[in-house]
Amino acid sequence: MNTNLKINIRPTTVSDVPLIFKFIKELAKYENLENHVTATEEIIKESLFGKKQYAEALIVEADSEAVGLVLFFHNFSTFLGKPGIYIEDLYIKEEFRGKGIGRKIFEYLSNLAKERNCGKIEWTVLEWNPARKFYEKMGGIPVEDWLIYRLTGDKLNELSENYQKSKN
Amino acid sequence: MNTNLKINIRPTTVSDVPLIFKFIKELAKYENLENHVTATEEIIKESLFGKKQYAEALIVEADSEAVGLVLFFHNFSTFLGKPGIYIEDLYIKEEFRGKGIGRKIFEYLSNLAKERNCGKIEWTVLEWNPARKFYEKMGGIPVEDWLIYRLTGDKLNELSENYQKSKN
Repeated sequence: MNTNLKINIRPTTVSDVPLIFKFIKELAKYENLENHVTATEEIIKESLFGKKQYAEALIVEADSEAVGLVLFFHNFSTFLGKPGIYIEDLYIKEEFRGKGIGRKIFEYLSNLAKERNCGKIEWTVLEWNPARKFYEKMGGIPVEDWLIYRLTGDKLNELSENYQKSKN
Repeated sequence: MNTNLKINIRPTTVSDVPLIFKFIKELAKYENLENHVTATEEIIKESLFGKKQYAEALIVEADSEAVGLVLFFHNFSTFLGKPGIYIEDLYIKEEFRGKGIGRKIFEYLSNLAKERNCGKIEWTVLEWNPARKFYEKMGGIPVEDWLIYRLTGDKLNELSENYQKSKN
């Protein structure tokens, strides 16, 4: 990739919250999931910089302009006995795609994984997302034979209430 | 489910590490993934009870006998702006399956999710695993349209080395 952009990836502080939230909304729009965003700036602030830190965010700069966001947390594999890096969000503004920024991000995260003794990086991708080609070029492999299951909403409430009842 | 077993689910301490590790190996055997276990007791101890706690473990008891393990960590959804509970391992000894213990575990975790303001519980399942029927009875739904990607091994090393080189 031949580009003259000066790319810099940096950790965030609480003053970046408005910027982080802006990128989260832009990513949701790209994924046609805008109506799924119920988070607010206040919630993001508490989740990333509050008492318990649930995730970490990085800002990607090109020629000192903020052009993207990486948001990740640590997962854990009992079989490996090692943590991993799970990328929850990876977003680059449309006009900055195809310029080698994604590769820089994966190099940065791979280095961080090594520094923190993580055995893997994982993430999920919408089936239709053209970024899959890029991910596979980076060495990412779709995990076969495993399905993701989710329990949420009314069912979660119902089971929780059953637990409460059984305690009384 | 009509069973006279007295089921108790309890958090673990460092003295439970040998038991936790025993169950991890039994689960790996059930999943035909025994040769993937590179963890050791020492590694599990450090990961669950060390300086940085990467995951939490619960022991399931039936009539005071330890019969199962739940190992989970918190993931995070930016769209919800909320953490979730991610079940990495859920194991019940074969002779104790079908006795309502799984339901108790899901009630316990759902209650914990509510206590900790989590919006969802997630986990992955091998496609052939008959436990899928049970998970769906609990209200779990297979997440469609999303693929899991993983980057590990040589590719991870290579990208990390590229990062190091670009820093020099």
